Amino acid sequence: MGWAIALHGGAGDIPLTLPTERRVPREAALRHCLQIGVDALKAHKSALDVVELVVRELENNPHFNAGRGSVLTSGGTVEMEACIMDGNTKRCGAVSGLTTVVNAISLARLVMEKTPHIYLAFDGAEKFAREQGVENVDSSHFITPENIERLKQAKEANRVQMVGRIGDTPIIGAGTYANNLCAVSATGKGEAIIRGTVARDVAALMEFKGLSLKEAAAYVVEESVPRGNVGLVAVSAKGEVTMPFNTTGMFRACATEDGYSEIEIWPSVQN
Amino acid sequence: MGWAIALHGGAGDIPLTLPTERRVPREAALRHCLQIGVDALKAHKSALDVVELVVRELENNPHFNAGRGSVLTSGGTVEMEACIMDGNTKRCGAVSGLTTVVNAISLARLVMEKTPHIYLAFDGAEKFAREQGVENVDSSHFITPENIERLKQAKEANRVQMVGRIGDTPIIGAGTYANNLCAVSATGKGEAIIRGTVARDVAALMEFKGLSLKEAAAYVVEESVPRGNVGLVAVSAKGEVTMPFNTTGMFRACATEDGYSEIEIWPSVQN
Repeated sequence: MGWAIALHGGAGDIPLTLPTERRVPREAALRHCLQIGVDALKAHKSALDVVELVVRELENNPHFNAGRGSVLTSGGTVEMEACIMDGNTKRCGAVSGLTTVVNAISLARLVMEKTPHIYLAFDGAEKFAREQGVENVDSSHFITPENIERLKQAKEANRVQMVGRIGDTPIIGAGTYANNLCAVSATGKGEAIIRGTVARDVAALMEFKGLSLKEAAAYVVEESVPRGNVGLVAVSAKGEVTMPFNTTGMFRACATEDGYSEIEIWPSVQN
Repeated sequence: MGWAIALHGGAGDIPLTLPTERRVPREAALRHCLQIGVDALKAHKSALDVVELVVRELENNPHFNAGRGSVLTSGGTVEMEACIMDGNTKRCGAVSGLTTVVNAISLARLVMEKTPHIYLAFDGAEKFAREQGVENVDSSHFITPENIERLKQAKEANRVQMVGRIGDTPIIGAGTYANNLCAVSATGKGEAIIRGTVARDVAALMEFKGLSLKEAAAYVVEESVPRGNVGLVAVSAKGEVTMPFNTTGMFRACATEDGYSEIEIWPSVQN
């Protein structure tokens, strides 16, 4: 038993023909974020500190759809979400509808640590951010040319993304969950993940059915969420890691204390 | 196997000394809401229609803390939530942060039926309400003298309820869940219910561990959520019903096709 870390930068229909100029910076960013996490673990930082540190990097990187680089609403605006959970205590914090907060993950942690609540959203969350003095910027900071183009394509395909829509990320048990057995972060089509209570189901299959981490994660991805909709990264308290997905690809990286590491986008050869 | 219906009007520290003038109208309201549901079931209305109909009654009744009679935020405002889920299809809809919509449950159903999303919140949800033409009123409609008094007491006791706070109700798997085995609605302390993924856990214990509805619900209420925090009502696809709680009381009512019915606030004699 030792530490394990796993992270993702989204899952979906990532074409195998992804141009080199889009693939290379994402692989580099995954490597960079993983290294930051590994270094922090080796320096004996707490799990919550490591999670916050790594997610801040993912948010700051415009190549992944959190923070800078967030998917835009149909109105061309950003409404950012984040969630953090401590498996030992089941304490958790979540935020939605942020428009100016640079690092939503840090605000989610503050909700967990500084309020009697778990989840703050929209104006109330922004107000709390002001009170806590977290870094904020003009919304335009989060909007990238790539996502303006993506919104244009989505509108042409009539795939609207409504203002006020809440996804799976901040929903404890859907996009995010941790208990004393494992920690899970899901990604993909938010609605399918909410309906499938994906993150809790991985943990529940371990807790109630005695499955291993890999078995539980594989069951959820293969049997309970329709193909093309979900990926997840998960670590167990024993230091195991698994990163299954049923989409074309998932930006992902992991490492364990015994020296294993993986940085991948599409199904890996050993899958 | 036949129909079963269960409903609640909140759980918490309801004193056994609740004055008659507060007890009697609530018992009458529970009876009234149950009767509406039973009549609709006997008229072969769909489960979703029955749920919407009964919850609208609960929302319209100022004695229960949904819709008119909602608990107030620290700012003295209302931010209403609702959630609906169809166990056969796992389709679901949820709303948060409503300030003018008379029946949040009807808007939640419209989110489910008319959008590609599950969950809309705050301004985006209100905007969607306007587009759908659901009934709206001035926010003052929802604010009762009793809840103004309750907010005053909460402020004196330094129990803040922050603006923007999202509770368990709209969180699929926490306050609300349904699948092909059962349907569950939890109530009590929202944060404990979110952390405990209460509604999904009842269903997961049936699905993954083979427990009966009563066993699963009892396990969650007795073993996985701290005392004083939760109550739930649940029905199974077989037509069973259970309504356990670990608070002082829970406003609740149920009926089954074979003629059994129950309208209670505190632990019933047979418990």
